[in-house]
Amino acid sequence: MIQIAIMGLGTVGTGVAKVVAENRRQIERKLGEPLEVKTILVRRFKDGPCRQLMTDNFEKIEKDGDIRVVVETIGGVGAAYEYTRRCLEAGKHVVTANKQLVAEHGCELLELARRKNVNYLFEASVGGGIPILHPLTQCMAANRIDEVYGILNGTTNYILTRMVRTGAFFSDALREAQAKGYAEADPTADVQGIDAGRKICILADLAFGQQIDPDAVPMEGIAKLSLRDVKIAKRAGYRVKLLGRAVRLPGGGRTAYVAPHLIPEENPIANVEDVFNAVMVRGNATGEVMFYGRGAGELPTASACVADVMECLQASPRREEIGWSPETGGFEDPLELKTRHYFRIEGSLTDAAMAFGQVEVLSEDGETAFLTEPVSGLDAERQSRLLNVLACMRVLEG
Amino acid sequence: MIQIAIMGLGTVGTGVAKVVAENRRQIERKLGEPLEVKTILVRRFKDGPCRQLMTDNFEKIEKDGDIRVVVETIGGVGAAYEYTRRCLEAGKHVVTANKQLVAEHGCELLELARRKNVNYLFEASVGGGIPILHPLTQCMAANRIDEVYGILNGTTNYILTRMVRTGAFFSDALREAQAKGYAEADPTADVQGIDAGRKICILADLAFGQQIDPDAVPMEGIAKLSLRDVKIAKRAGYRVKLLGRAVRLPGGGRTAYVAPHLIPEENPIANVEDVFNAVMVRGNATGEVMFYGRGAGELPTASACVADVMECLQASPRREEIGWSPETGGFEDPLELKTRHYFRIEGSLTDAAMAFGQVEVLSEDGETAFLTEPVSGLDAERQSRLLNVLACMRVLEG
Repeated sequence: MIQIAIMGLGTVGTGVAKVVAENRRQIERKLGEPLEVKTILVRRFKDGPCRQLMTDNFEKIEKDGDIRVVVETIGGVGAAYEYTRRCLEAGKHVVTANKQLVAEHGCELLELARRKNVNYLFEASVGGGIPILHPLTQCMAANRIDEVYGILNGTTNYILTRMVRTGAFFSDALREAQAKGYAEADPTADVQGIDAGRKICILADLAFGQQIDPDAVPMEGIAKLSLRDVKIAKRAGYRVKLLGRAVRLPGGGRTAYVAPHLIPEENPIANVEDVFNAVMVRGNATGEVMFYGRGAGELPTASACVADVMECLQASPRREEIGWSPETGGFEDPLELKTRHYFRIEGSLTDAAMAFGQVEVLSEDGETAFLTEPVSGLDAERQSRLLNVLACMRVLEG
Repeated sequence: MIQIAIMGLGTVGTGVAKVVAENRRQIERKLGEPLEVKTILVRRFKDGPCRQLMTDNFEKIEKDGDIRVVVETIGGVGAAYEYTRRCLEAGKHVVTANKQLVAEHGCELLELARRKNVNYLFEASVGGGIPILHPLTQCMAANRIDEVYGILNGTTNYILTRMVRTGAFFSDALREAQAKGYAEADPTADVQGIDAGRKICILADLAFGQQIDPDAVPMEGIAKLSLRDVKIAKRAGYRVKLLGRAVRLPGGGRTAYVAPHLIPEENPIANVEDVFNAVMVRGNATGEVMFYGRGAGELPTASACVADVMECLQASPRREEIGWSPETGGFEDPLELKTRHYFRIEGSLTDAAMAFGQVEVLSEDGETAFLTEPVSGLDAERQSRLLNVLACMRVLEG
């Protein structure tokens, strides 16, 4: 009998208890013995099937030598950070879905886990139930990873899908997402790109093996996105998607950011719809590989946590290094990155051509929408000062 | 310095030597020491950069205590089987891309590896460079896997893509694939579904944890597929794809087969084009997750082998069990499986309705093409004896 604890009984914590109970047989077959939730840390006691396991005293977990793995689903960086440290110090493995904590303190917590000879695993922090961190760090370990990009937030992808399919305005699509339970009452973290930003930081940390400072990563959401640009892009054979993107630059540096992009409709990621997530990884040997599925939700995210729990128990004493150095050097502003840019301006084709030379016109209808040749973000900004810019987005190549 | 050997210097073997050399830095960073190919087993000596590493004497590898991991890329089940056994007996880890050997003897070789406390890993045997076996067995370990299906053969998918896109006949599309180097001079194993069949056997073994006898798995290829059916399907909103499919049946049994299917165009797998592969896995907690990329090729496949080599070295002494019992019980004929079926008959709508009751007509043009309600393969066969059937395929639901 292997005993674990859960800290926090929100959506994911509840899901972990459910998965452990419902898939008891599968889990026992792989572990060789049964897995049981012994203790659940809550702030307020609630009635329900887990009532007798609840405690509001963290020391009940910290000091219990029978508990070998702790699943942290508290969220945020306050109590979650303190309790995670103390669990690792106490020689317990810790598993989490907490993307904010991993993006901000992952490298440091991994180092603590290493010293204590235990694991700190966080597959569920990116892409919910989609296996992505493990394939990236283990299965693609023989590659130099050159780029990772993806649709990392289901709420914004649902909103964009409604805008493309039914021509809904952003505000209406957001209300629809809230009515369906896909968006929070306060949708800020999703809509402003912050949730996707934390995830692209974690992906970049693991892809390049070096710490990314989340504060250095520009995060642009979809709140200011115009339905008009979505429609022009669609007619020209592109889909607008909110991408998190991390790129190894030609000079050896690396960068990361979140922003809406135009994506050619032949790219498989252009067809990722509704609340689905997808992550594309480009390795120098493997080429492009895509991982696709539900990026959130109680059971998908919980099942990724439970798989990490199982891995902690099987990879004894601990899993191999994933390679995440605290070194932050070499990070460059994404404005260095060259891509084609989409512009919609209050002005004529002549205005566009005077600023950018050769351009591809997408529409001329009182305004002018066009694509530039590849230019850096810096040049795009500089040249666009000559223009009356109504909208500007990067185009994903390929 | 860690030393390995390669057996066989065909496409994949050559690729392994290249990846080890080209990505030396990435590999050393993860392993903590350099990785070097010491010996390469060949049948005939060839000139080239690896000339001084070659031997035609297997015992040079078997008896070399410095060689800790052997990559088997000989192919087939003759020498590959014998040498793999002897390497494992000698206490060396073995890594392979050999799908035939794994499908036919995987369970037995894993048992031998277990006894010798070494690893037998074969991520590259399915999906080339796409991480799939590892995510299936580790990252989704907390799920009961209910279904796995996929486009497992790039050659046939290229041919089907040409038939859909340009209306090419099968024979012309095959010649085009051969001219581009995507199809062998003897394309039998690809076109008859045998290659995809071996891969679905391995996926089913790992998804359900029990041995599948490859001889019990019906493998139908695309050689008899008519361009007419591809066109009718396309007009009705379906794509024709060759799928390998393994399903947990409602009664607790399981089945597997390879056959062309009609797939609704909204399903992401319908849009997997050209030589790309994709595998969809359905878990009871995670839902559907898809893995997509290049399923073959020198460097992608080789990089999956090298990642397995790295895992052998890091997961010391050996990786956790993946769960593959030699027990073959519970396998049922895929004819038990209920799905909608596509038929094209020399006959009228009345003929169709008399055989299958309610049907959905796709075309009436001298012949009648229609979709049935869900029926078992057995019933589809039985009822179709009343009809003059020109073509019949299953429809993938969802």
